[in-house]
Amino acid sequence: RINPDRLWDSLMEMAKIGPGVAGGNNRQTLTDADAEGRALFQSWCEAAGMTMGVDTMGNMFATRAGEDPDALPVYMGSHLDTQPTGGKYDGVLGVLGALEAVRSMNDLGIKTKHPIVVTNWTNEEGTRFAPAMLASGVFAGVHTQDWAYGKTDAEGNTFGDELKRIGWVGDETVGARKMHAMFELHIEQGPILEAEGKDIGVVTHGQGLSWTQVTITGKDSHTGSTPMPMRKNAGLGMARVLELVDEIAWSHKPDAVGAAGHIDVYPNSRNVIPGKVVFTVDFRSPDLAVIEDMEARLKTGAREICDEMGLSVEFEKSGGFDPVTFDPACVSAVRNAAERLGYSHRDIISGAGHDACWINQVAPTAMIMCPCVDGLSHNEAEEISKDWAAAGTDVLFHAALETAEI
Amino acid sequence: RINPDRLWDSLMEMAKIGPGVAGGNNRQTLTDADAEGRALFQSWCEAAGMTMGVDTMGNMFATRAGEDPDALPVYMGSHLDTQPTGGKYDGVLGVLGALEAVRSMNDLGIKTKHPIVVTNWTNEEGTRFAPAMLASGVFAGVHTQDWAYGKTDAEGNTFGDELKRIGWVGDETVGARKMHAMFELHIEQGPILEAEGKDIGVVTHGQGLSWTQVTITGKDSHTGSTPMPMRKNAGLGMARVLELVDEIAWSHKPDAVGAAGHIDVYPNSRNVIPGKVVFTVDFRSPDLAVIEDMEARLKTGAREICDEMGLSVEFEKSGGFDPVTFDPACVSAVRNAAERLGYSHRDIISGAGHDACWINQVAPTAMIMCPCVDGLSHNEAEEISKDWAAAGTDVLFHAALETAEI
Ligand SMILES: NC(=O)NCCC(=O)O
Ligand SMILES: NC(=O)NCCC(=O)O
Repeated sequence: RINPDRLWDSLMEMAKIGPGVAGGNNRQTLTDADAEGRALFQSWCEAAGMTMGVDTMGNMFATRAGEDPDALPVYMGSHLDTQPTGGKYDGVLGVLGALEAVRSMNDLGIKTKHPIVVTNWTNEEGTRFAPAMLASGVFAGVHTQDWAYGKTDAEGNTFGDELKRIGWVGDETVGARKMHAMFELHIEQGPILEAEGKDIGVVTHGQGLSWTQVTITGKDSHTGSTPMPMRKNAGLGMARVLELVDEIAWSHKPDAVGAAGHIDVYPNSRNVIPGKVVFTVDFRSPDLAVIEDMEARLKTGAREICDEMGLSVEFEKSGGFDPVTFDPACVSAVRNAAERLGYSHRDIISGAGHDACWINQVAPTAMIMCPCVDGLSHNEAEEISKDWAAAGTDVLFHAALETAEI
Repeated sequence: RINPDRLWDSLMEMAKIGPGVAGGNNRQTLTDADAEGRALFQSWCEAAGMTMGVDTMGNMFATRAGEDPDALPVYMGSHLDTQPTGGKYDGVLGVLGALEAVRSMNDLGIKTKHPIVVTNWTNEEGTRFAPAMLASGVFAGVHTQDWAYGKTDAEGNTFGDELKRIGWVGDETVGARKMHAMFELHIEQGPILEAEGKDIGVVTHGQGLSWTQVTITGKDSHTGSTPMPMRKNAGLGMARVLELVDEIAWSHKPDAVGAAGHIDVYPNSRNVIPGKVVFTVDFRSPDLAVIEDMEARLKTGAREICDEMGLSVEFEKSGGFDPVTFDPACVSAVRNAAERLGYSHRDIISGAGHDACWINQVAPTAMIMCPCVDGLSHNEAEEISKDWAAAGTDVLFHAALETAEI
């Protein structure tokens, strides 16, 4: 068993970096706070006897040597970056849980055939630089590094420049590492495990995601002196498209969700009818056909709405991945570990995207979930219990040991 | 008659300060560009033999002496600040047209009994610091100066600090000046005069305005893993309220308009269901009862929408004024001038708010309008012809001379 108090202390210590405004965290990727969090993580890894490697996307890999120098490593990890108003556990539990597993191996003098690597993936959240899971995507060969380096934040800074600025461009080629397997522990971010009183979610699948950036163009004009029939109100067009997004998602109930979290209105002046609105529609489903149907209906429906209002509309796919089926052997290792340790468990589909979804394309991968209070995540009030964190980390520890061969 | 070329050259010269991105201007109030525009205006006034006074709200008053030292001055003017993506004429024509009228008096050696004062009112647009017509409102005793000084922009800077920063806190007490009359020349910002081929709008009334800042609060949560029935999507609530605003305005057709130009979504992250949205509803009508009806229906309707969705909603009145009836004698002076000069004219109601709407509470006031292309304003593409500018300025010149007594 791992050491729950040590794990919790590390979680609380990390949460001091990039504090939020309401008890959570704002440690967005490639900010000064991100750099500080990385340095703390590195110091902990080194204190646990691991050697740090960093690749040119800033992904961090701390290695604990194995007994067979030719055996590929077993990876464990997640991400340390957070949402602008994020919680203390989303991502962080997966990184510090992996570190705790290694610390426990050290305590117990456990040696493994395969090396063990604890990983922090860069920019999982995708808030500052879309898409999400950017650096694990480059690692898995889904995106090129050049493309990722060129991504810009709201201020126009590029990913490449910001990675350099915070001093975390490593020397390893991204994706050069080969993996025996990879495990990611994560909070559920949904309500199922807590509602059913289960300690552990054995993640068999991940639902797919589609981000469509929609740009509606009308005509800036005066809110007072422009007669109603002459208006080309891009904001009203957006309102109608948001209603459509909701309708489309509900029509596939319970197999789909849809919303827009990002909305920018131009020129955003109280007495100017919006001439342009840019927003991102987030559709998800475990079923690829459903995602494709939702994307198609969004485009057709938004075009109809905008045509009727004299507005123009453009679409750009700004992120996404297909539904994922995790590796059966790795999934079994997770289920076996939960069973052996006596934790209640159920199979579950991940509602969110994770680095594991991309890594699954290049290595046998699985995920472990633990409950979170009220299923709430991407909120500063995100909360878990020490027992839940410990159970998830115990299962990670055992699944990794089984796979790394004691 | 005034000198159309000199007027036009001054308009084009001023438009070089705070250029926009598409041929218009971004010379928002209390920016460095605003300070530069003020300095240029001051130098022109002094070159025309006028003496500049500035009050503690930054309002500028350039005086041309009259023959009777006891006679109250006749004021002419408007504002030099612009929208973030504004035109070259909105406000500017009224200030530089007034300056041109004085230059023409000088050319023609005209002496008036009453002094003439050319005015630039601070922060008419209200984009950076709501409400609009802030400094003329303080001048008219509608707002206190302390209240105005405390208004903040999106970055949290106060009006008072920014006025000091750009160096335009004057020493005159606001509102201490007494006026014999005030005339404001402005572009129509609507389509009526151009459509009817009229040179001049004789502004008899101004429609009233109501700005309601609406804050809808839901719950930030994950766009992927939060089941549809558990969502408290403040963005979707806003979409429904925007639709309601449109319905309410149309229901009073053709006597009302309504829209929201300002919308801020929090935390504005692609994978976070909006937990909070703040937006400003702009309702206008020439009929006070209609404005009151629209405000009441907005509140009732938005509460219903939000209750049903598990959202909370709050309202704050962030600006507004009642419909205005301009001074009959001043209106006649405008109409007589247009008639005498042979310009086609019609009576018109101003769709936008103007500094004249507040000054009308403390002095006999009227407005003159000239057409603008396609009725387009609050857009960088705002355009007028030199002839239209000249006709409006001629009428301003003559109405002021008649009132100031030659
Ligand atoms: N786990 C998580 O919140 N990932 C961010 C990517 C997503 O939006 O699903
Ligand atoms: N004239 C003008 O655009 N004034 C701004 C105030 C308003 O929104 O009416």
